[in-house]
Amino acid sequence: MKFAKRTQKTGNSGLEDLFAASGPNVISFAGGYPDRSLFPTQQLNQAFKHSFNSGDTELLQYASTQGYLPLREKIAARLRATGIPTRADNIMMTQGAQQGLDLVARLMLDPGDGLVVEAPTYLGALAAFNAYQPTYYEIPMQDDGMDINALQRVLMSHKVKFIYTVPDFQNPTGVVMSVAKRQALIRLANQYDVMILEDNPYRDLRYDGKPLPTIKSFDTQGRVVYLGSFSKILSPSLRMGWLVAAPDLLQELLALKGGSDLESSNLTMHGIDAYMAENDLDAHITEIQNCCREKKNAMVAAMNRYLPDEAHFTNPDGGFFLWLTMPAGFDMGAFMKQHLLPESNISYVPSANLYATSAQVNGARLNFTGPTLEQIDTGIKALGDALKTALQHHLVAEQA
Amino acid sequence: MKFAKRTQKTGNSGLEDLFAASGPNVISFAGGYPDRSLFPTQQLNQAFKHSFNSGDTELLQYASTQGYLPLREKIAARLRATGIPTRADNIMMTQGAQQGLDLVARLMLDPGDGLVVEAPTYLGALAAFNAYQPTYYEIPMQDDGMDINALQRVLMSHKVKFIYTVPDFQNPTGVVMSVAKRQALIRLANQYDVMILEDNPYRDLRYDGKPLPTIKSFDTQGRVVYLGSFSKILSPSLRMGWLVAAPDLLQELLALKGGSDLESSNLTMHGIDAYMAENDLDAHITEIQNCCREKKNAMVAAMNRYLPDEAHFTNPDGGFFLWLTMPAGFDMGAFMKQHLLPESNISYVPSANLYATSAQVNGARLNFTGPTLEQIDTGIKALGDALKTALQHHLVAEQA
Repeated sequence: MKFAKRTQKTGNSGLEDLFAASGPNVISFAGGYPDRSLFPTQQLNQAFKHSFNSGDTELLQYASTQGYLPLREKIAARLRATGIPTRADNIMMTQGAQQGLDLVARLMLDPGDGLVVEAPTYLGALAAFNAYQPTYYEIPMQDDGMDINALQRVLMSHKVKFIYTVPDFQNPTGVVMSVAKRQALIRLANQYDVMILEDNPYRDLRYDGKPLPTIKSFDTQGRVVYLGSFSKILSPSLRMGWLVAAPDLLQELLALKGGSDLESSNLTMHGIDAYMAENDLDAHITEIQNCCREKKNAMVAAMNRYLPDEAHFTNPDGGFFLWLTMPAGFDMGAFMKQHLLPESNISYVPSANLYATSAQVNGARLNFTGPTLEQIDTGIKALGDALKTALQHHLVAEQA
Repeated sequence: MKFAKRTQKTGNSGLEDLFAASGPNVISFAGGYPDRSLFPTQQLNQAFKHSFNSGDTELLQYASTQGYLPLREKIAARLRATGIPTRADNIMMTQGAQQGLDLVARLMLDPGDGLVVEAPTYLGALAAFNAYQPTYYEIPMQDDGMDINALQRVLMSHKVKFIYTVPDFQNPTGVVMSVAKRQALIRLANQYDVMILEDNPYRDLRYDGKPLPTIKSFDTQGRVVYLGSFSKILSPSLRMGWLVAAPDLLQELLALKGGSDLESSNLTMHGIDAYMAENDLDAHITEIQNCCREKKNAMVAAMNRYLPDEAHFTNPDGGFFLWLTMPAGFDMGAFMKQHLLPESNISYVPSANLYATSAQVNGARLNFTGPTLEQIDTGIKALGDALKTALQHHLVAEQA
């Protein structure tokens, strides 16, 4: 039995490595986990109870591929409040935003088709896209988002199907794309007839400064597909995200979703809808922001205090991650595997997994929302000590 | 923006037509809906409540791609009781059995690869497979399952990646594959090095006779992937199925699932696990069997009573569907669209949608579990009257 060619790409997504590196004694900066103490367990319990007791005989039945209308209406209202002029009709529910990545790639990509990604980019996006065998074009990340000049050069010389971007608190760097770049991105997409996949699960989790307009809000030609999710603002265990797309795109994406898993859970959609009717989601988000701001500040303070001078890192205004860069040639993957994990029980995501093609080794993604404040201090101190030792002994130079 | 080539195949899956044909006044034999009066709403309410109140801080967190271990252990125990020697390790949870169809096709199929399907076959399977652009080989259904001689001729002359079959109460015909054919199927798969995808969502819903061994139970080479689901025995709204596969296959399927939607809902898995711990699922299944047996008998009695002599139909021992065949040339799709639906508000699934390539028009899939006993009598009487009228007036002869 021979597998499809795509499995040569998907076999080593690195996702499993993350889980493997998180035992009970490990302080993990690797995951993308919300703070578990903030899940609104009893409010969700009440909301599900009310759904079960509603007398709706269709609650546990097959429903529709697009998803429960009242919930889509609530999501549309929230999106309109952020400047995206959308209606429930333009929204479909997905199995987390991750399914949106899969469906859009499935819609657009024949093997070999061009796909622009940020460098570095989200690990799970590469896992989704790899199944459709794209030709990747990497655009380097800068402090204000992807290098637009580099993007223009790619679009001038290569046929590209879509551009994948996480404009707010990018996974993995934490960088926010500037308004000027968001506008430039739309102009280039219009000029070269390219789709944009705007993946925005962290948008509501801003800890400092003011939100910028979404790329979708500048879209006048229906070429931006926008992904959102309840995973970071409510619970990832619900597996509920959404996708906003122009009618012609949405129709195709609905057909692909039908073939993929028929529909999302009607019970869960009713439960979330009841939660939103009975609770102030924005007040809950404020609570998450306050908790995560404190953790982020603790993380940055610990890194300033404990890491060697050779370590550089971002100080993001929101989201889940910051990005650590060591001098060129320092292999953060080898360092973790050979020293940090076995000797200090600490993990992160090494950068080599986070590039579509270039496999740069001297960076790492560190999550600050999953660990406790105490783990942040303990873990970053141990990381700093281990990095200093490694630098002194030239332990993890890249083998050229 | 140009879509991938696959969308030429997936655009018209027919799944949407089913929903379009089910308004409030329509008596629908089209869906594949469980009887809504039997959903264990309060038991599930209790089970979810117990999960929410368990104090498990990981309940609402990201979990694992493979799925909640205690639930997989319970599923493995049930499968062992039916003669499949499996353990929790060999099982992964899926977003309904539908996701199993998608993932196996994704694992195996490069564009143009050979795929054997029954003729007719399950609509949603074609929707899943079409996204991977297979070359279909249709094997005609007989009273005891697919025509094994025809299968052998295909395997002798064509390279085939896998064989898709619904051996128990096939969707759409209701046919059960004989033990001799199950064994022959395994022998041929071994001989020609082909995978088998055994899709078995209706297995527990047998109303007469004794269960036959699964194809998987004859598999000594790890070449059968087995799909099961809670959709028909608990609730489709939970979107929870499972997949049993040999370790090398399972590892690849887990990577593909990770890229597709990361994981199934941890909350829902805990809820189902609590339901199974607190309730007698087999007693619930017996209740479903009793209800569906009554409906099936009513359906067959009504068809015997009301349909014209030219109509032939199966009398299945279980499952959700029976299969109606009219004389060659009678177009059941045109008849429904032009007469039955507008004049009598009755729907079914016309056979043309249920063939991968041959598009035979003189059959229909009728569901007997969704409608009430009263709707069955009213609906089949109206269907009989309309068929008789159409036959007398030669209204719906196939346009050759």
